Amino acid sequence: MPAKELRIGLIGGGRIGKLHGRNINTSVPGAKVVCLAETMLNDGHKAWVDETGIPKATKDPADIMNDKNIDAVFICSPTDTHADFIIQAARNGKHIFCEKPIHTDMQKIKEALVEVEKAAVKLQIGFVRRFDHNHKKVHDTVASGVLGKPHIVKITSRDPEGPPLDYIAVSGGIFMDMTIHDFDMARYLAGSEVIEVMAYGAINIDPGYKKYGDVDTAVVMLKFENGAIGLIDNSRAAHYGYDQRTEVHCDKGCVQVANDLNDTSVISTGDGVFCEKPTWFFLERYNNAFIAEAIDFVDAVSNNKKPPVDGKDGMMAVYIAMSANKSLKEHRPVMLSELTKLFININSYIL
Amino acid sequence: MPAKELRIGLIGGGRIGKLHGRNINTSVPGAKVVCLAETMLNDGHKAWVDETGIPKATKDPADIMNDKNIDAVFICSPTDTHADFIIQAARNGKHIFCEKPIHTDMQKIKEALVEVEKAAVKLQIGFVRRFDHNHKKVHDTVASGVLGKPHIVKITSRDPEGPPLDYIAVSGGIFMDMTIHDFDMARYLAGSEVIEVMAYGAINIDPGYKKYGDVDTAVVMLKFENGAIGLIDNSRAAHYGYDQRTEVHCDKGCVQVANDLNDTSVISTGDGVFCEKPTWFFLERYNNAFIAEAIDFVDAVSNNKKPPVDGKDGMMAVYIAMSANKSLKEHRPVMLSELTKLFININSYIL
Amino acid sequence: MPAKELRIGLIGGGRIGKLHGRNINTSVPGAKVVCLAETMLNDGHKAWVDETGIPKATKDPADIMNDKNIDAVFICSPTDTHADFIIQAARNGKHIFCEKPIHTDMQKIKEALVEVEKAAVKLQIGFVRRFDHNHKKVHDTVASGVLGKPHIVKITSRDPEGPPLDYIAVSGGIFMDMTIHDFDMARYLAGSEVIEVMAYGAINIDPGYKKYGDVDTAVVMLKFENGAIGLIDNSRAAHYGYDQRTEVHCDKGCVQVANDLNDTSVISTGDGVFCEKPTWFFLERYNNAFIAEAIDFVDAVSNNKKPPVDGKDGMMAVYIAMSANKSLKEHRPVMLSELTKLFININSYIL
Amino acid sequence: MPAKELRIGLIGGGRIGKLHGRNINTSVPGAKVVCLAETMLNDGHKAWVDETGIPKATKDPADIMNDKNIDAVFICSPTDTHADFIIQAARNGKHIFCEKPIHTDMQKIKEALVEVEKAAVKLQIGFVRRFDHNHKKVHDTVASGVLGKPHIVKITSRDPEGPPLDYIAVSGGIFMDMTIHDFDMARYLAGSEVIEVMAYGAINIDPGYKKYGDVDTAVVMLKFENGAIGLIDNSRAAHYGYDQRTEVHCDKGCVQVANDLNDTSVISTGDGVFCEKPTWFFLERYNNAFIAEAIDFVDAVSNNKKPPVDGKDGMMAVYIAMSANKSLKEHRPVMLSELTKLFININSYIL
Repeated sequence: MPAKELRIGLIGGGRIGKLHGRNINTSVPGAKVVCLAETMLNDGHKAWVDETGIPKATKDPADIMNDKNIDAVFICSPTDTHADFIIQAARNGKHIFCEKPIHTDMQKIKEALVEVEKAAVKLQIGFVRRFDHNHKKVHDTVASGVLGKPHIVKITSRDPEGPPLDYIAVSGGIFMDMTIHDFDMARYLAGSEVIEVMAYGAINIDPGYKKYGDVDTAVVMLKFENGAIGLIDNSRAAHYGYDQRTEVHCDKGCVQVANDLNDTSVISTGDGVFCEKPTWFFLERYNNAFIAEAIDFVDAVSNNKKPPVDGKDGMMAVYIAMSANKSLKEHRPVMLSELTKLFININSYIL
Repeated sequence: MPAKELRIGLIGGGRIGKLHGRNINTSVPGAKVVCLAETMLNDGHKAWVDETGIPKATKDPADIMNDKNIDAVFICSPTDTHADFIIQAARNGKHIFCEKPIHTDMQKIKEALVEVEKAAVKLQIGFVRRFDHNHKKVHDTVASGVLGKPHIVKITSRDPEGPPLDYIAVSGGIFMDMTIHDFDMARYLAGSEVIEVMAYGAINIDPGYKKYGDVDTAVVMLKFENGAIGLIDNSRAAHYGYDQRTEVHCDKGCVQVANDLNDTSVISTGDGVFCEKPTWFFLERYNNAFIAEAIDFVDAVSNNKKPPVDGKDGMMAVYIAMSANKSLKEHRPVMLSELTKLFININSYIL
Repeated sequence: MPAKELRIGLIGGGRIGKLHGRNINTSVPGAKVVCLAETMLNDGHKAWVDETGIPKATKDPADIMNDKNIDAVFICSPTDTHADFIIQAARNGKHIFCEKPIHTDMQKIKEALVEVEKAAVKLQIGFVRRFDHNHKKVHDTVASGVLGKPHIVKITSRDPEGPPLDYIAVSGGIFMDMTIHDFDMARYLAGSEVIEVMAYGAINIDPGYKKYGDVDTAVVMLKFENGAIGLIDNSRAAHYGYDQRTEVHCDKGCVQVANDLNDTSVISTGDGVFCEKPTWFFLERYNNAFIAEAIDFVDAVSNNKKPPVDGKDGMMAVYIAMSANKSLKEHRPVMLSELTKLFININSYIL
Repeated sequence: MPAKELRIGLIGGGRIGKLHGRNINTSVPGAKVVCLAETMLNDGHKAWVDETGIPKATKDPADIMNDKNIDAVFICSPTDTHADFIIQAARNGKHIFCEKPIHTDMQKIKEALVEVEKAAVKLQIGFVRRFDHNHKKVHDTVASGVLGKPHIVKITSRDPEGPPLDYIAVSGGIFMDMTIHDFDMARYLAGSEVIEVMAYGAINIDPGYKKYGDVDTAVVMLKFENGAIGLIDNSRAAHYGYDQRTEVHCDKGCVQVANDLNDTSVISTGDGVFCEKPTWFFLERYNNAFIAEAIDFVDAVSNNKKPPVDGKDGMMAVYIAMSANKSLKEHRPVMLSELTKLFININSYIL
């Protein structure tokens, strides 16, 4: 056990921020949240920090950045603030856990990653699904090599219900907001970089998406460097729960995982056979995965290890999402290199 | 029951011909195979007709075509003979069951369909998977409308083992030979015509495919007229058996089917939990479906009904396969109309 | 292939007789039913023999017994005629397939078995479930020894719907009529003789069973010679289909089988997840098993092999059923030896 | 939320005590463990209380009993101390959570229950499986009445590995130590009292059980007041994990639950299909159930509700276990009333 407990500043007190805060203080040994910074701080936040055993709450993130006793930050604020908080934290020598996506502006991402590199702090991106027991088993099986080279990577990812349309207005679009998780999952499962993307989209659920140039149903094909082909299908509204299945078909066979269900019951009557639905949404399905990623972050910082999901992982998922957007708009397959070469001169960082 | 038994001439005594012959004579009420025509007729065929209760075998298909007592033919000969046999049978007033694909040359297909139309005989194409209890359940659920409009149609179709390379040389390529079944299944499940195709292919299993300009791994995206998107993934060699799963995600939910297994056993030990493999290949998986399609053909002929899979179905699957070939070669999405308009002047038949 | 086709006389033209007759004439190579004997012969039977290709039908079973050209009989008549037909067939040198139970009167059973032994003809009892792909897999796994010694044998066996009460009146009671299959299954799976039985019964479905001293719900515990314990649960009316599951827990682990389902579909909506029911009843579930047992019988006769289910198997299941009846009545565990010793002097046959 | 946090004294710092202590302090709102009493208190316990945020540890349970600031106790000490701690806690006006079994001596149980009644404190017994999502679903389905009256209640309960033989020496025997959970589950699922028990036992795993008059394999049949029949099968060593399945067959159909698995993966290769094992043992399977029962206890105390598992539940399971022991020894079905009448004069408490 590390001699010293990791002291964490939490930036953002929304749903995901509270989730991480509670997890750290109840289920992550060797770490404590010591301050919440939330620009819209209200009485609800104050009650929550009391309950959760967080001794301080502030409206000003600088209170965290400037506190010498804080070792690391969890960035759970809106996406367009991520890069700046990463830069500030890095410059203050703090280790960083940042929610996905790292940012939607590639130039900002690169600037942030350069600062992280300079400061030699740890950066972990919140691709929580990598820590799910099911998807991890698919990854581990493929990575072990027992099935040989991957041929086909399949990801089904459907939300139970679409968000309100005013969220869609600012979401960055389905690929940057929702499929971004699947793009990371695809790289994780294939063990290889994506080199090309072809996207189909449709508005099947709510005509309101049209106004925002967005789609509610999407299918994406991916080509990987190692010769594998990827397939992702998304829906904003599956209705029956959170549909999160992955599958990799390899040289010697196939590994696949089904959804976790609410329970294993089977009720058989003359009217039919009734089984349980998948767990409702990400809070239910990825509950343990959120704890596991925080534990791994604390372990990476405390024991000077490479974080399991790093800045390059965060950046690559954004490149794929940008390529998918371009493919959908231009109705053609898009090579990732068309985009990566545009950003090649920004700095010396990856790609 | 029809007063008169349907008398059938079987053209082709290979694996699939024998399968149909045996099924008709043991499991299809109201029909009998009365003659086998096989240009390579040998002692094996003679023993087989004896066993199967088929009174006559000949090398010359004309013996069937000219026999006034034969009501219908089952065309189970090589693909490049299909159209000509359809034309001959139609001109001789015989009803026709023809194995898939109807042909690979669109002009020949159209000529054949015109003759069928003129002769007003029944024509059924052997897309046997429509008669499988699992896929049929998916279709029937979607078609019933209880789930609303289809959004995403997914088909996994993997053979247990690839054929020998000398078969690949003459197969017509993966899309015409293997995916053709899935193209038909896609139309069947979506209840809508395919309007666009985007295909990815890879050689992951056997470098020998390169010589024939073919691939062993393929993924195809489809756009349907009704707004649904389709996804097909194929492998020539799954190793664990015949992987035949379908799924349609609709407005109100999802219907999916898994493989049939050899048995339902689960063996649990300290070493792990062992389940059974999918049934090995099409003879095992679609055994009952082959019988069901023959029964339906006999019913269509005997009771003057529309065959459940007709000439247009046969033709459309070929159009989709041609489009997939073009997409793979030209590395872009291909509209079906690019191809269908080329053949529009051949005759007045469909499209 | 045997030079000569086995010529079979079918005794009894009820549901099970017709099932065997059709199976033999369509799906069992090397055998043909050449005569039906049915004491209540009517026009329906005559139409059926025509359809099925059986050249002769008679009211008098003696026409079969006396026909030198008939090699074997299938006894599908009412239970109380089984022993006499076995004796007549044996005395006429005919091989015998007899439906279960062999008889309900132990003295008659022993007399019949002595005649079979004297005549050195083959006798197979119709415990068809041994030929089911699922239960056979459980048996084969246990018999292979990979799991070590069996500890617990569990059989769930529930009919979809109870028979009419006038059938209950003459059925011989639940243990002799329904559980008899499970008693055979228990011996088959455990690979050991039953030495003790404890039965609980209840009338939960239909108070009408009371009048006949019968129960509609039954649970039986069994002790086997090899130290294993058995558990059977029965219901006359499961409603959701034919519930036929078996499980053996052994020294190193457990093997179990689930029901076959109508299809593998899963329909997921906001209202729930709907799966398919088990196949409806024995005609659906054991269809292939009926064919397999007939094939094995023909093989045993044609190639002079031991039948897979013999006279002793038929007799032992009856002993267990008698013991279960006694246990239920006397409300105590009953040793099989209490009953077997009563019959020990009848003749020199087994036990 | 209650104004005041419930202050809990933990009696016993073994595995189960630590489990409850950690759960209360991390996952049960409105309650805190404020003292551990452990007669064998060592440095390990001291480190653990520090980690867990428990401010005090003592060797003397009286320190808890006499502490006016402690509202409730969790009794996690050895079984033979349960009744005395219940009595002391009740006399000191403390609410009581007591691990199962409540005790093995019926006279002590009754004395304890009388004291609880007099003191009007809450008493909850730790039958944790009632709080498992799967078994609870079976219970709730039966209790809802949608399936009608229960006919057959089946419980499979097998430990992954047997305890060491020196534990067997003091365990009280399989029925009091292991099946006690299943006896409670049987009452819970059937919604009815057990009136009769018939037990079979065998030594199949380890001959060492003989010395202690115990068995390692057991099967029990139960009769319920409502006419249902119960079936329990136990093994001390399943090897593949913790096998915890329940099923109730009712008038209109059946509800059953399978095990939770480590993950939902299916790996299919030419060698076979590999699934995941059940979760290993009770810590994994019933993790959330332990939290849920503590939350319910705190709720019962804080909001003056009836605890979900009360003293009578604790006592009845012991009566059934005593009856099962008697049945096994005397080789006959045993009525519960044979035992309950023996204790009827002890006091006025239940029965």
